[in-house]
Formats: sequence, C-alpha cells, structure tokens
Amino acid sequence: MVDLKSLHNHSLFGGITEDQISSIRQFFVVEDFAEGEFIEREGEAGDRIYFIIEGQVEILKKITKTGNLSRIFMFSEGDVFGEMELIDVQPCAASVRALKPTKALTLSNKGLYQISKYDLKVFSLMIMNLARDISRRLRKVDEIIALCPEINKLKE
Amino acid sequence: MVDLKSLHNHSLFGGITEDQISSIRQFFVVEDFAEGEFIEREGEAGDRIYFIIEGQVEILKKITKTGNLSRIFMFSEGDVFGEMELIDVQPCAASVRALKPTKALTLSNKGLYQISKYDLKVFSLMIMNLARDISRRLRKVDEIIALCPEINKLKE
Repeated sequence: MVDLKSLHNHSLFGGITEDQISSIRQFFVVEDFAEGEFIEREGEAGDRIYFIIEGQVEILKKITKTGNLSRIFMFSEGDVFGEMELIDVQPCAASVRALKPTKALTLSNKGLYQISKYDLKVFSLMIMNLARDISRRLRKVDEIIALCPEINKLKE
Repeated sequence: MVDLKSLHNHSLFGGITEDQISSIRQFFVVEDFAEGEFIEREGEAGDRIYFIIEGQVEILKKITKTGNLSRIFMFSEGDVFGEMELIDVQPCAASVRALKPTKALTLSNKGLYQISKYDLKVFSLMIMNLARDISRRLRKVDEIIALCPEINKLKE
C-alpha cells in the first residue's frame, strides 16, 4: 500500500483534506516501469497523470526536422507528469522514458470522471489546482519564448 | 445588454447550457477601453478573464535585456485573454493594449468564486474547459521550444 501522505503535499491536492484524499484513493492505480521502458510515447493516446513515488524519468520531444528525440525535462520522486493528458483528450505532447526502475501512482481520465461523480467539490478543487499548475508552466515557457525573437517568427 | 449567445460558442462554456449561462450572467461585467489604453500591465495584479465583444488588442511582453515590449499575439472579437489571471493569483504574465476601441465581457476571480458557491457543477465545467484551453496553449509553445535547441539552454 502506497503512503498517501506524499500526495497530500502535492499542489494537485491543495485545499483537500487527508480524509478526502483517502476517500478518493480507490480511483488511483500503482504502476511499475523498468529502466529504459517508455511510459508514454509522443503522439499516442495518453489519458493519465503520474505521481512519481520512486525512480526517475526523462521527458522527450521529437525534433521535427531530424526525427531525433530531444530531452526537455527530467523528473524524479515527488514530481508529476501527464497533467495535460488527464484533462485534455489528445495524443501525448511528449514521450516519457524511465531512467531508473520507476513506481508511479496514476489517475486516468476515467478515474477523474469517477471522482467528479463521487465528490464534485474534491473534483473541482483538483481541476482548479491542475489548471493553476499548467498555467504556471505556460507562464514560464511564454517568458522563454519572449526572450527569443527568432522563436516568435516560428509561431506565425 | 450584451448578447450572451456569443459566449455559448466559446470553449469555456463547453457542456454548459444557454439557461445555465444566463443564470451566471450576473457575475460578468462589461468593460470599455479606448484605443491605446492599457487593459493589463505585465507584472501588475490581474484577476480577470476578458471576452472581446468588439475591437482588437495586442499582447505584449517585456524583453528583459532591453526593457522594450515585444508583441506576442493579437486578439479580436471572439477571442479571450486573462485565463491565467482568472485562476492563478499572480501578477499578469503579459501586458494587453487596445489597438481599437474595445468592449469586453469580464469575469473576475471573485466572480468565479461566487459562481462556485452558486452552481458548483457549472463552476467545475468552466474550470475543466479553462484547464483544457491552457493545456492546448502549453502544447503549442512546448512544440515551438522543442524546435529550438538554443531555447532549451535558457531553461536551465
């Protein structure tokens, strides 16, 4: 049984009590990945968020011109990925590969829907927290883009 | 009285009926801006979303090295900005200036909170839609960044 206390500290559960987290624990699943295993592949359907409990992963994006993979982030214990796939029914925005044996607690889009039926208040808090997280990430990359006039041309 | 039918077509109200939109109309405010007027300034507190009913605006970001403003987007009737400020209590990520006389329907963070008290289901649908919109924008900029190895260095 995975300790849920680590979840409580995550921004996704801001404003949600430990009792409430315990009550929605049933909608989460523990998944294990071997070193080198692809957890998600860019362009393929992805529908879940991953809370890394143990291990380390790299986030990779295809460089269109060459088809090579470029590492854009590394995540480890306490980090989260797949927020976008959880709420946005689209292909994965990036690939994710385990750099070490990795254990994650996951919540699928279907599980999230079940939470909305089970406790709408907890659901709306989770979505609000998720939207804030994604928003903060967008702020950061917008700032990076604003620094680079060449990049602005690519957008047009 | 502003026609609410245009709102109904906006992704923020996906899954929300016209009757439900009419019932939360009380939490929205109409605001008018003169040509050249700053609607928001980067770094200052922003707390609302703007649905442009008439007019045109430019989104500007400061280029850190020079202090000059760089136009990153232009928006007009039917477009929306301030999604991030609505849900994320932080300074504005960019400045917004009216290029023409502009009329907008706005919803503040306080108004959104009132909607959560008034109708939690409508609120959670709105937040879900908002999170999806922000997520799609993040996907786009992530793709732009992945194309540019120089940009990746700036992130580190």
